[in-house]
Amino acid sequence: MTRLFHKHYHPAGTAPGTLRELSMEQAALHGPATFSLACRDAGRWGEVCEIGPESIPESGPDKPLCWLHVQGMPTAEELERLGDRVGLHPLAQEDILNGGQRPKVERFDASLVVILGIPEVDAEGGLHLYQLSLFMGSNIVVSVIAENLDPFIEVRRRLKERGGRALGEPDDLLYGLLDAGVDHAFPVLDGVGERIEELEMEILNRPDSSTLERLHGLKRELIMLRRYLWPTREVINQLLRDHNDLFTPDTRLWMRDVYDHTVQVMDLVESYRDMTASLLDIYLSSMSNRLNESMRTLTIIATIFMPLTFIVGVYGMNFAHPTSPFAMPELGWYWGYPMVWGLMIAVAIGMVVWFKRKHWF
Amino acid sequence: MTRLFHKHYHPAGTAPGTLRELSMEQAALHGPATFSLACRDAGRWGEVCEIGPESIPESGPDKPLCWLHVQGMPTAEELERLGDRVGLHPLAQEDILNGGQRPKVERFDASLVVILGIPEVDAEGGLHLYQLSLFMGSNIVVSVIAENLDPFIEVRRRLKERGGRALGEPDDLLYGLLDAGVDHAFPVLDGVGERIEELEMEILNRPDSSTLERLHGLKRELIMLRRYLWPTREVINQLLRDHNDLFTPDTRLWMRDVYDHTVQVMDLVESYRDMTASLLDIYLSSMSNRLNESMRTLTIIATIFMPLTFIVGVYGMNFAHPTSPFAMPELGWYWGYPMVWGLMIAVAIGMVVWFKRKHWF
Amino acid sequence: MTRLFHKHYHPAGTAPGTLRELSMEQAALHGPATFSLACRDAGRWGEVCEIGPESIPESGPDKPLCWLHVQGMPTAEELERLGDRVGLHPLAQEDILNGGQRPKVERFDASLVVILGIPEVDAEGGLHLYQLSLFMGSNIVVSVIAENLDPFIEVRRRLKERGGRALGEPDDLLYGLLDAGVDHAFPVLDGVGERIEELEMEILNRPDSSTLERLHGLKRELIMLRRYLWPTREVINQLLRDHNDLFTPDTRLWMRDVYDHTVQVMDLVESYRDMTASLLDIYLSSMSNRLNESMRTLTIIATIFMPLTFIVGVYGMNFAHPTSPFAMPELGWYWGYPMVWGLMIAVAIGMVVWFKRKHWF
Amino acid sequence: MTRLFHKHYHPAGTAPGTLRELSMEQAALHGPATFSLACRDAGRWGEVCEIGPESIPESGPDKPLCWLHVQGMPTAEELERLGDRVGLHPLAQEDILNGGQRPKVERFDASLVVILGIPEVDAEGGLHLYQLSLFMGSNIVVSVIAENLDPFIEVRRRLKERGGRALGEPDDLLYGLLDAGVDHAFPVLDGVGERIEELEMEILNRPDSSTLERLHGLKRELIMLRRYLWPTREVINQLLRDHNDLFTPDTRLWMRDVYDHTVQVMDLVESYRDMTASLLDIYLSSMSNRLNESMRTLTIIATIFMPLTFIVGVYGMNFAHPTSPFAMPELGWYWGYPMVWGLMIAVAIGMVVWFKRKHWF
Amino acid sequence: MTRLFHKHYHPAGTAPGTLRELSMEQAALHGPATFSLACRDAGRWGEVCEIGPESIPESGPDKPLCWLHVQGMPTAEELERLGDRVGLHPLAQEDILNGGQRPKVERFDASLVVILGIPEVDAEGGLHLYQLSLFMGSNIVVSVIAENLDPFIEVRRRLKERGGRALGEPDDLLYGLLDAGVDHAFPVLDGVGERIEELEMEILNRPDSSTLERLHGLKRELIMLRRYLWPTREVINQLLRDHNDLFTPDTRLWMRDVYDHTVQVMDLVESYRDMTASLLDIYLSSMSNRLNESMRTLTIIATIFMPLTFIVGVYGMNFAHPTSPFAMPELGWYWGYPMVWGLMIAVAIGMVVWFKRKHWF
Repeated sequence: MTRLFHKHYHPAGTAPGTLRELSMEQAALHGPATFSLACRDAGRWGEVCEIGPESIPESGPDKPLCWLHVQGMPTAEELERLGDRVGLHPLAQEDILNGGQRPKVERFDASLVVILGIPEVDAEGGLHLYQLSLFMGSNIVVSVIAENLDPFIEVRRRLKERGGRALGEPDDLLYGLLDAGVDHAFPVLDGVGERIEELEMEILNRPDSSTLERLHGLKRELIMLRRYLWPTREVINQLLRDHNDLFTPDTRLWMRDVYDHTVQVMDLVESYRDMTASLLDIYLSSMSNRLNESMRTLTIIATIFMPLTFIVGVYGMNFAHPTSPFAMPELGWYWGYPMVWGLMIAVAIGMVVWFKRKHWF
Repeated sequence: MTRLFHKHYHPAGTAPGTLRELSMEQAALHGPATFSLACRDAGRWGEVCEIGPESIPESGPDKPLCWLHVQGMPTAEELERLGDRVGLHPLAQEDILNGGQRPKVERFDASLVVILGIPEVDAEGGLHLYQLSLFMGSNIVVSVIAENLDPFIEVRRRLKERGGRALGEPDDLLYGLLDAGVDHAFPVLDGVGERIEELEMEILNRPDSSTLERLHGLKRELIMLRRYLWPTREVINQLLRDHNDLFTPDTRLWMRDVYDHTVQVMDLVESYRDMTASLLDIYLSSMSNRLNESMRTLTIIATIFMPLTFIVGVYGMNFAHPTSPFAMPELGWYWGYPMVWGLMIAVAIGMVVWFKRKHWF
Repeated sequence: MTRLFHKHYHPAGTAPGTLRELSMEQAALHGPATFSLACRDAGRWGEVCEIGPESIPESGPDKPLCWLHVQGMPTAEELERLGDRVGLHPLAQEDILNGGQRPKVERFDASLVVILGIPEVDAEGGLHLYQLSLFMGSNIVVSVIAENLDPFIEVRRRLKERGGRALGEPDDLLYGLLDAGVDHAFPVLDGVGERIEELEMEILNRPDSSTLERLHGLKRELIMLRRYLWPTREVINQLLRDHNDLFTPDTRLWMRDVYDHTVQVMDLVESYRDMTASLLDIYLSSMSNRLNESMRTLTIIATIFMPLTFIVGVYGMNFAHPTSPFAMPELGWYWGYPMVWGLMIAVAIGMVVWFKRKHWF
Repeated sequence: MTRLFHKHYHPAGTAPGTLRELSMEQAALHGPATFSLACRDAGRWGEVCEIGPESIPESGPDKPLCWLHVQGMPTAEELERLGDRVGLHPLAQEDILNGGQRPKVERFDASLVVILGIPEVDAEGGLHLYQLSLFMGSNIVVSVIAENLDPFIEVRRRLKERGGRALGEPDDLLYGLLDAGVDHAFPVLDGVGERIEELEMEILNRPDSSTLERLHGLKRELIMLRRYLWPTREVINQLLRDHNDLFTPDTRLWMRDVYDHTVQVMDLVESYRDMTASLLDIYLSSMSNRLNESMRTLTIIATIFMPLTFIVGVYGMNFAHPTSPFAMPELGWYWGYPMVWGLMIAVAIGMVVWFKRKHWF
Repeated sequence: MTRLFHKHYHPAGTAPGTLRELSMEQAALHGPATFSLACRDAGRWGEVCEIGPESIPESGPDKPLCWLHVQGMPTAEELERLGDRVGLHPLAQEDILNGGQRPKVERFDASLVVILGIPEVDAEGGLHLYQLSLFMGSNIVVSVIAENLDPFIEVRRRLKERGGRALGEPDDLLYGLLDAGVDHAFPVLDGVGERIEELEMEILNRPDSSTLERLHGLKRELIMLRRYLWPTREVINQLLRDHNDLFTPDTRLWMRDVYDHTVQVMDLVESYRDMTASLLDIYLSSMSNRLNESMRTLTIIATIFMPLTFIVGVYGMNFAHPTSPFAMPELGWYWGYPMVWGLMIAVAIGMVVWFKRKHWF
């Protein structure tokens, strides 16, 4: 659970914009950064090729449009060089390096930094949130994401094929990356939906103690998902509302589609939360049901056998008096034993009839 | 449950506006598309007749007003042809083809795409949501809905009879279809209301384990209904607020009526949710009640018979000493046995009185 | 429960404004309509007298101010005639006839239709909501309400006495009727408050299974009340905000008072909902308490008597060997029997001390 | 409970502004009115002296500033005279007389009526809400409050000492009274906080059945407090926002402080509500805990002694056959009895080990 | 718990702005005040040195920028002197002295008072909230905080090193202190997160009665945290929105970062509240689970041994009749005893099979 909530923060009071080296542990989580670059030349995109941090090109209005993708977490030094080349504000550098940021959009003059959370399922089915940082500067778009997650496979394919939308402007490219990032949540949420269905089958049929633990795990993941995905909607909304001078009317139209998707994602998360709450209710109710069932079985057994055991106990008493007519003379009667059985059968039948009347079985 | 939450989506990063063929499974669900067309000529509506996809007419300001109704899901190819003829934006085509969209309204210049969710109950009583897509272009209104649901029977009857409102303008026709689509929810919700009442009777009288399962199913359906119906209200509101240049003042007046109906639908769904929450509370309380009842029965029986069984056990002990006055001499007394019965009856009566005092029965 | 949620609706797609005859069942519920009319002449109100539907006067700016009160549900035909005479829009006619409408205010030019829900308790204590429809036209005010509810007794008295406010203008009269309609909720809510108090006493003292059922009934009624009364507040607010050109400044001042009352009504309903939720918690807690009490009694009894029964069982065994010193020789000892009693009393006291230590009784 | 929710209302339809005599019961609650008057002359306040209702001075712009304080509920007649002298609107008179009003502010031209709810704890610890009505007219401020509550002791002291703020203008005096009224809630809420702490200690240590009842009482009081205190915040806000022409800039600054206090009061009430909800959860959990404890004790005892009792029962059977080797020959063995004890001890130890393994004790 | 909710308030009606001496108890809590001063001279910061209250410098536009930090609670007298020297409004003095204020920002002309709540964990792990009061006047910034909490260590270090941001203007310095104050919450919340994780492990593995108590303690702390931290967000927002004339554009940019942090803090607190609610559900469910387990064990044991004990009781009865064939002749049969064992084993196996069928173990 630790990773879900922990955040990489400075000691309070540190000057903001200070870049701090990642701790060992964090560095291992994000992996070293790999830089890949694609540039658009003469109306078509060149190859996506890996470059070293020293080859990051400078951007500017007279440079060709480039897409710099950083896979893994750059070191503070790499990030500073990147910032110098493409004009990334120190505060934005800090946000990228710290990770675990709330989704947000920040504007610095004509450049835009968008930070999103991308959910991903690892090999063991655990849900993780990775930070996707997007920067749109002058003829440059930079994307930074943790090592083991690549939401941009389709985007690269489209660059190569030049299919679909042309992606010929920075805002267009930014839109393409945002769209890919947001839509990455759908298969993850589908997986969550399937886990809910499995849990539902299990709870309605044969819940065991691990069911509860998994239901709790699901709830916790949904609390986290909600916390990170909720502001995403506002981020896209802000892009549409406050920064629409940076987007062409055409791109704004496509951005509305991204906004719809973020709303759909939130709707799904909310529905899932409702579903898990309902499942917990069902679990508790079925527990209560089973307790009732045990209790009734016990009560029926005890109510039938306790009086019978008392009766046979009576005739196990050793009262004896040569002449007293009160010293259990029936012990010596010819029909004594069958009479006692008759009594016991009558008691048992009486009890059963009584339970039947009360609809206990 | 799967179908309620699953959605037909592209791999993240696919260029938007790409039309993808439906999977086999989905195609079976929606069925092949049937196109039917009605046109208005010289102030009156012609027959509604089935046409092939190749006969879709082109629309335009100088063409007669037509209503093209598509029952079932068109293929990507058919949809593209339709789009070409009537001016349907690729993003809207994508929304229609993908299905499972959140209700929304999109405007492309003077044309309007409205997407709604229509609830319907199938033969086994299961609740499904079908997407109704409405398009209002230049003298054309297109409606697309899944195969096995037809909310427009009354509308067709009115076209034939020319009764009620004249439906002589696109906005008027769009209103008519919206009204029919929204009102389709009322009988479905009535059915849900009846199921709630049945469950209520059952829970108050004789709940069994299937009750819980059905209550849960109802809750899940209401979660889904709410998720799809909630935005409907906003959709109609947007039509009234943002796009009222496309509607005549007269139609706007009638649209307010549709808005009222969407509010009523949401009120009903919210009330039903409150009711099911209350029913679950009642179910849990009555379970708790029955557990108490079992428990008391058991306690009363045990508390009465355990001391008695102990007493008869005492006199079943085999102590014997020829001369000791402490070796249970009462076993040999003349009145010994009746005395023990007297003791036991006294104990039993004492217990019963004690329980009576504590109002246990 | 049926009546609370069922609504009288058209088949989806019916042309709006179509008046449909009431079903038999509904007609019985509302009863036939009785028309009564009072007109103001020379600054004073005439008698309130019953008229036939054919005598409904036409209204107009040069006619005297009239109040037409319809008790019971008019037939579609009567309603159409009424509409013709006083200028009631077909959509408003439909709203009146259908009943079960959400409270709302509709404006048609200079005329206003206000629809409210009036709660009323019937002879058996059941809560019903009746629709009060008010229409203010040109020098005419029409009120329509179901047969067996008359919230206007006081208003008629004031007309007769000319006491209090003069009611000399349509807006003034409309205010008077609205005020009477809204205030009708107070005694009904007082009755609900008393039922909550009774239930509270019962739950804290001696709950039985019918308590739960009544608590549930109360919750359901509050869900319904809330659904209908909540929009009332908005209705009065709209009158004050959007249509204040139809009211004199003086009447607006008095309308603020009505608004305050609707807010008070909603506050009460919300408080009652909180109270019933709290009562259910208390009920469940006291059930849990009683279960604990039973359980402890049982545990104490069983824990004391089971070891004792075991001990007496031991000495009921038939081991016997002429010479073995292990064959329960204590059975033959002089002090054997008292010793066993000593042991048993020690065990019992030990258990009681242990329970005392654990504060079990 | 009755008094918390009951309200003194007119029959629905009564002309508004009608003053009705208080019922006997209410009159007893509020007590007869005592009028006390203080006037400011030549820049200083005179004595506060009791006057009869006939000596109420007329107010006006050329009169000295007076503070008329009414302790207890005036009769309709007294109120009418008061209204005539100081210019109190009939609607405001009605609000004062009826009591139980929602906090609100009403403006009539240049005069202002503010109605607040003041919580007070009576001698037995019961919480009551009293209505404080404040009227600011032309050079007059009138305060009306129920008999047995005096929140203005400090204000009177300041008048006498002329200490602190000068209170030389009506708005200044009104502020002083509002501030005293709002701050009166703090010690009351502190008392509630202490009761919550006591309940918390009790629930965590030794809850009994009265605990639940008191927790419920607390919840009910908080529901009521919230209902009356919530609008107070809005009232002060309205004074600051809508009527700031009646206040000097200086007084507005001080009023912001009163607003902060109302927000703090609401924060406290909300926190208390959260706390009581949490306490109920704890109560239920600890009940569940104790039930578990009882259940385990019972199960352990039963599981150990039932098999033992069965074994001793076996050897209490009277099987005997002179020659059969199957007729319980161990009864006659030399080591028979010790062997049975060995068996029983083994069974008991086995059970204890099994429970230990399952961590049951 | 007392300290969390208690507040230091005046008797209601006291003139506002009255400074009252702290009670003994409070003085002990806050400790005596220590004043330390740092001034900026010729573009660089001088030493931070402790001064006596009599050496507080006067501030003004022509004075050097100073930072006066007050650790501990000044006496009323000291505060008044401070107010005189730096221009602190009496209302603000009152807010500082009273403590326990809701976070807020107050503006008096060109000076600004910001009040925040700073959470801190004491040595025993208890959570406390301390009030941080910040005042920005003319070339002076004053900070007041309780004795045993110092969030400004890093700020002092930066002053010394002149590293990071220059802090050369009052708004810049105020920002630095606000940032340090807000960020102080992160490690505290991390500690809370760790406690939640520990509780989660405990509840899922081996809950005991202290678990519940600690979970409750956590909930209470989160209720308090939320109450004080929630308004912090609004405070920073107000600074950005209403008082941005006091900040340079550059500082406003950095303030947006502080705002983001307050939003993150609230997100964390809300997630923690959701988590603790979920944990309580899990706790209750696992209690219910264990109860079921006990109940089943008991039911199985009782259901198997009660019939057996009854059977052996039957053969312990003393029926005997020399000639009757009904007087338990099997007691004397050669195979009698093994037959009874056969019967008992059959009953036991039957029960076990029945339980297996019902999946009870």
